[in-house]
Amino acid sequence: MSKSNLLSAPASPVGEVIAALTPHFGERLSTAPAMREQHGHDESWHETAPPDAVVFPQSTEEVARIVRTCAAHRVPVIPFGAGTSLEGHVAAIHGGIAIDMSRMTALKRVSPEDLDCTVEAGITRKQLNAQLRDTGLFMPVDPGADASIGGMVSTRASGTNAVRYGTIRENVLGLTVVLADGTVAHTGGRARKSAAGYDLTHLLIGAEGTLGVVTEVTLRLHGIPEEIGAATCSFAGVDQAVATVIETIQSGIPVARIELLDDVMVRACNAYSGLSLPEQPMLFLEFHGTAAGVAEQSDRVAALAEANGGSGFAWSTRPEDRSRLWEARHNAYYAALALEPGKKGFTTDVCVPVSRLADVIAATRADIAATSLTAPLVGHVGDGNFHLILLVDPEDDANMAEAMAAHDRLVTRALDAGGTCTGEHGIGLGKQHYLAREHGDALGAMRAVKQALDPHDIMNPGKMLPPAG
Amino acid sequence: MSKSNLLSAPASPVGEVIAALTPHFGERLSTAPAMREQHGHDESWHETAPPDAVVFPQSTEEVARIVRTCAAHRVPVIPFGAGTSLEGHVAAIHGGIAIDMSRMTALKRVSPEDLDCTVEAGITRKQLNAQLRDTGLFMPVDPGADASIGGMVSTRASGTNAVRYGTIRENVLGLTVVLADGTVAHTGGRARKSAAGYDLTHLLIGAEGTLGVVTEVTLRLHGIPEEIGAATCSFAGVDQAVATVIETIQSGIPVARIELLDDVMVRACNAYSGLSLPEQPMLFLEFHGTAAGVAEQSDRVAALAEANGGSGFAWSTRPEDRSRLWEARHNAYYAALALEPGKKGFTTDVCVPVSRLADVIAATRADIAATSLTAPLVGHVGDGNFHLILLVDPEDDANMAEAMAAHDRLVTRALDAGGTCTGEHGIGLGKQHYLAREHGDALGAMRAVKQALDPHDIMNPGKMLPPAG
Repeated sequence: MSKSNLLSAPASPVGEVIAALTPHFGERLSTAPAMREQHGHDESWHETAPPDAVVFPQSTEEVARIVRTCAAHRVPVIPFGAGTSLEGHVAAIHGGIAIDMSRMTALKRVSPEDLDCTVEAGITRKQLNAQLRDTGLFMPVDPGADASIGGMVSTRASGTNAVRYGTIRENVLGLTVVLADGTVAHTGGRARKSAAGYDLTHLLIGAEGTLGVVTEVTLRLHGIPEEIGAATCSFAGVDQAVATVIETIQSGIPVARIELLDDVMVRACNAYSGLSLPEQPMLFLEFHGTAAGVAEQSDRVAALAEANGGSGFAWSTRPEDRSRLWEARHNAYYAALALEPGKKGFTTDVCVPVSRLADVIAATRADIAATSLTAPLVGHVGDGNFHLILLVDPEDDANMAEAMAAHDRLVTRALDAGGTCTGEHGIGLGKQHYLAREHGDALGAMRAVKQALDPHDIMNPGKMLPPAG
Repeated sequence: MSKSNLLSAPASPVGEVIAALTPHFGERLSTAPAMREQHGHDESWHETAPPDAVVFPQSTEEVARIVRTCAAHRVPVIPFGAGTSLEGHVAAIHGGIAIDMSRMTALKRVSPEDLDCTVEAGITRKQLNAQLRDTGLFMPVDPGADASIGGMVSTRASGTNAVRYGTIRENVLGLTVVLADGTVAHTGGRARKSAAGYDLTHLLIGAEGTLGVVTEVTLRLHGIPEEIGAATCSFAGVDQAVATVIETIQSGIPVARIELLDDVMVRACNAYSGLSLPEQPMLFLEFHGTAAGVAEQSDRVAALAEANGGSGFAWSTRPEDRSRLWEARHNAYYAALALEPGKKGFTTDVCVPVSRLADVIAATRADIAATSLTAPLVGHVGDGNFHLILLVDPEDDANMAEAMAAHDRLVTRALDAGGTCTGEHGIGLGKQHYLAREHGDALGAMRAVKQALDPHDIMNPGKMLPPAG
């Protein structure tokens, strides 16, 4: 306390919070402009909004200390994982304290017998899988970016192999969370299932940091498959590729990944990753299983692809071939951005029932073709989820208006098909009006939950829920 | 309105509700003692508490009408499915209106392309699967009893094949629900995944009717397997049977069901279902897949069982053999009750990490052996979940006290092992103090959610959450 008295007199609630936290956190609290700027934006087009300070806690108790202090002064708290979100989730639009979780990366416990582990929320998925390798287990959820587990929980992330292993929602058993008043609560547990009380675990998954700060996560793990095979196949048109996907899913073939890239995206990947794939719509596939199982799955998908006019079905179980292919897929977002240097990515994220995927994609591509927009398409089509990466210049009003209008038509098309405005990126800043359109009759209950658990609206304020009235 | 004026003057809020609803519902509202008594209890030992009236709505709008009327008069609302719950969930301990869902049983929509359907919540799982048969699809969650889908949602049910297909939690895509103020809200949707807003679907799954009345459910479906095989195997002791289960799960063999019955339970099933199984601990198994896959799974489990001293491993793909076996398993609860006619079933429901299952079961059996209790054991051991069916006479204080004490020691053992007091039955009336023990630090958040969504505590009051203070 004496140390804080040496600082200049606090001029505001957030100044008081900084003064109160500095004696404890020392150099682990920063107000440096570069640090604040870095924590004020994610990987999307959304405008940077720097927090007033960034704190690097090392334990749940330290997170609780920060939240308690912020609560006392009604100062916003913005959890920050790896900064790879795509809807402006970390932008400190009302100022406040960013909690950078990057020093909470411990793998606290792993149980090969139970196929589960407990991690601190700041660990990234690649860090976790590197540490798990010797156990023969892996954490399958893979949104592409090397996101933190806490960030993946908070945005309800999924990615390329959700079609087989589920999203983060199906792979979390329990959480440690710091609630808005600083209470530390443990939700769920280590049992595979429980019917004890309200499912706060799933309420917090996808809550985008608006109900609490996730500090630890108990995760289901899966055995690393004996054999992994990768395949690619080109199609004359997107329709035929999508038909192959639908037939694969309906046949119950347990593909681990089945990803669609349209011709524009293949061209971008070729340029960015030094590949020479045919610049046509393409499926990237991955098969997991025994050697015989992988071969059987591959043969069955090859037959479906051929029946849909697919050409050049090529598959391999060589790790180097797989790595090269999936590295290119993972870099698709950056490859898209490189198509028009200087532009930003405005990523759409609709998800529709698989039976409606072909017509929604066809209508969307026709729609985009009638605009001046560049918009490569990539999708986790086994789940009915696809992304357009609209290349935009946020300074160019006409360009932004055209992108917004195309997005609006896309969301309308998805909702009309029984789908959702966001399969895996979340609402954040960019989709609040669509949340109202999609879940209008449930919005009152969502607001009531937020009000109950965060009555002073300090937890990542201004995100997810649209302004009232 | 004129009709209600002909009734005797309402003497109480519930009288006013009955008077207000009668003109609309006519004979679909009953205050007959037998009807009320039948709706005041489930299949457990918990005491009957009749509602003041039972109403049979035929649509979501009618449910909303009932709830709005009850809300206006602050009268309790108790949703009633098939009455097969085991923790007193339907007992109207504060009186009020039971909403019997048995006239809302429509299969509203099925999409074989998307492997999903939407049903009214009153349909039972057997009714649903009978209607689905021609589509080649089925709804796998199977708690044994022919529960209603709405009841299964509200108790977070699972059962014998959760080990392969997940619990109801993993098989619900969206809900229609009438909230405490009569608002009709739609949660989730038909997309396989969504990151749009708070996960109210999962908040309502397992909420035991305390947050709203579920009126429609969108469910994931699964293809009926090409081949189904069933097997049994006997063991000298429970330990060896459990070791076989653990090794099966850890080997990643995708068994559809793997159920343990101890010697007492096998004896009960022999007597009740006219079987002649060896009266030793036993595993009942089911395998789903292609003919080759089922044979391979069966061979692998047989080898594991043999290595653990299992004897008489017998398997069959004949439907009549399977039906007989699983019918016996499904009737285990009634078989247990028949061991001591006149007694009631007090069913325990702990679930622990699979690695701890053997020692928790061993300690529990030793504990029971030192009491005067009869307590056959049956379990969904692939999930770490097992039940003792304690045979009790609720009128016999000493007997009840002994059962309660044994249950208390069992829950303590399970919580110490990282488990839960309830894997699939829920909290209801019987486990509120254990909810506090298991999730004490999260109880405040649970209470806040309840207060936010049901401020006047009319939705199944007195269930799940322990009394405050």
